[in-house]
Amino acid sequence: MSYLITGASRGIGLELVKQLLALPEPQVTKVIALSRGAPPAALQELLDNHTARSTHVTASVDDTESVKQAAKAAEAELGDQGLDVLINNAGVFGEVFAEGARFIAPEEMLRVLDVNVVGPHRMTAAFLPLLEKGKQKKVINMFVKSHNYRPSIGCADVRRRSSTLGSIAMSEYFTFAPVPPYKISKAALHMLNKQYALEYEGKGFTFLAVSPGWLKTDLGGPHADLDVDVGVRDVMRIILEATPAQNGHAVGIKVSGNDRYDGKEVPW
Amino acid sequence: MSYLITGASRGIGLELVKQLLALPEPQVTKVIALSRGAPPAALQELLDNHTARSTHVTASVDDTESVKQAAKAAEAELGDQGLDVLINNAGVFGEVFAEGARFIAPEEMLRVLDVNVVGPHRMTAAFLPLLEKGKQKKVINMFVKSHNYRPSIGCADVRRRSSTLGSIAMSEYFTFAPVPPYKISKAALHMLNKQYALEYEGKGFTFLAVSPGWLKTDLGGPHADLDVDVGVRDVMRIILEATPAQNGHAVGIKVSGNDRYDGKEVPW
Repeated sequence: MSYLITGASRGIGLELVKQLLALPEPQVTKVIALSRGAPPAALQELLDNHTARSTHVTASVDDTESVKQAAKAAEAELGDQGLDVLINNAGVFGEVFAEGARFIAPEEMLRVLDVNVVGPHRMTAAFLPLLEKGKQKKVINMFVKSHNYRPSIGCADVRRRSSTLGSIAMSEYFTFAPVPPYKISKAALHMLNKQYALEYEGKGFTFLAVSPGWLKTDLGGPHADLDVDVGVRDVMRIILEATPAQNGHAVGIKVSGNDRYDGKEVPW
Repeated sequence: MSYLITGASRGIGLELVKQLLALPEPQVTKVIALSRGAPPAALQELLDNHTARSTHVTASVDDTESVKQAAKAAEAELGDQGLDVLINNAGVFGEVFAEGARFIAPEEMLRVLDVNVVGPHRMTAAFLPLLEKGKQKKVINMFVKSHNYRPSIGCADVRRRSSTLGSIAMSEYFTFAPVPPYKISKAALHMLNKQYALEYEGKGFTFLAVSPGWLKTDLGGPHADLDVDVGVRDVMRIILEATPAQNGHAVGIKVSGNDRYDGKEVPW
């Protein structure tokens, strides 16, 4: 099976490339790692160790033309077999506006929506012809199950806590605080997933929104719940086990003995 | 009490201006009608009939500078009394892409998000200083309770039905078909409402998402469920009765004897 992962240069995307390439053929026949720039060392090493089964494509999900070019490059790579699984993982957290939601620059909110919502749309739209040729027809949209995070953390909470936390601790806190544009974009992504699912229902497709949990990535910060390999291991299970019966659903990871990660459907 | 309504030139916005001005002082002391261009005849007539209590401000919610100027104009009008109620009603439906979601131009999706999500953010951010001075501190975000619409209408459904419907009927059908970018933007708006509500909790504010139902406006089309005055009458009730206990909630209108409009909380 062939996989394309956006945002493959680091964090969850990089770990997905790693864990996918650790699986044998024919379970994984090809992994296409997509990122904005040249592969960083960690990704390049993975690619070098699996030259026959992996490739890198440069594109930015907020640039329609680059996404179209990426689809052409993938088609040249995959041929008539098409693409089996598209993983829309790339996303931005956006700037933190500790002074409050009203200080969020409109351009910044629009930028986050462009990357996190219109980005997956650009990718899905461009890769659908390849997915239609593929056997699995899975589109995974990585979103956030917001109640995985500490309850009701908004800018106000961050501000409130800032009096009790040192500035270094605060900056760490900021790295995972779910800032409004990020949350707003992920709510929209959830609906995008549903809309595509409705349209492709009954055609063998599985559009699935997956919440990877709060992981120790650059985005998640050092105080996150789980190591990235632990979270991604269950994301892998979800992706491998996904069936058209789950089309349009949204699921979170399951970590045994952890109430926060019960693997249940996300209610909204 | 003072009110500002965006998208006041037609449809629900125009009807809100009309019904608000029909209420006596002191219940309604000032209505500021905001629209992109000069007031059309119907709005101008309302303004002319209530010169002491109404005014018009020109701004476009997707233009940050014009929104800031509108806040200055409103401040000059309202003075130390501030603004009591902001009604974020302006919105666009977006183009219909009957061929399917993958044919939605990324720029078009971004435009709908800009107007329908970032627009209310621009307005809320710019008017918060005035709302803080006001007595009611209500921000109403008009969204859509999507299950008010026919179930699961996506582009695919529209396409499926296109074989059984004549082309004229189809074009009418399109006027209310909830196209993906619109639905996506309203899901995001719902989250925007929640984020502001969290931040201003306990400060006397009421951020309330209100679903006005499917009304016979230009946007709703001629086959909508309810006449615009009927739907807006209950929107008026919701706005007038709103209290801080509802902060962050989302409610739909209630029409007696109509199962579709039961006035209940919207689950997501």
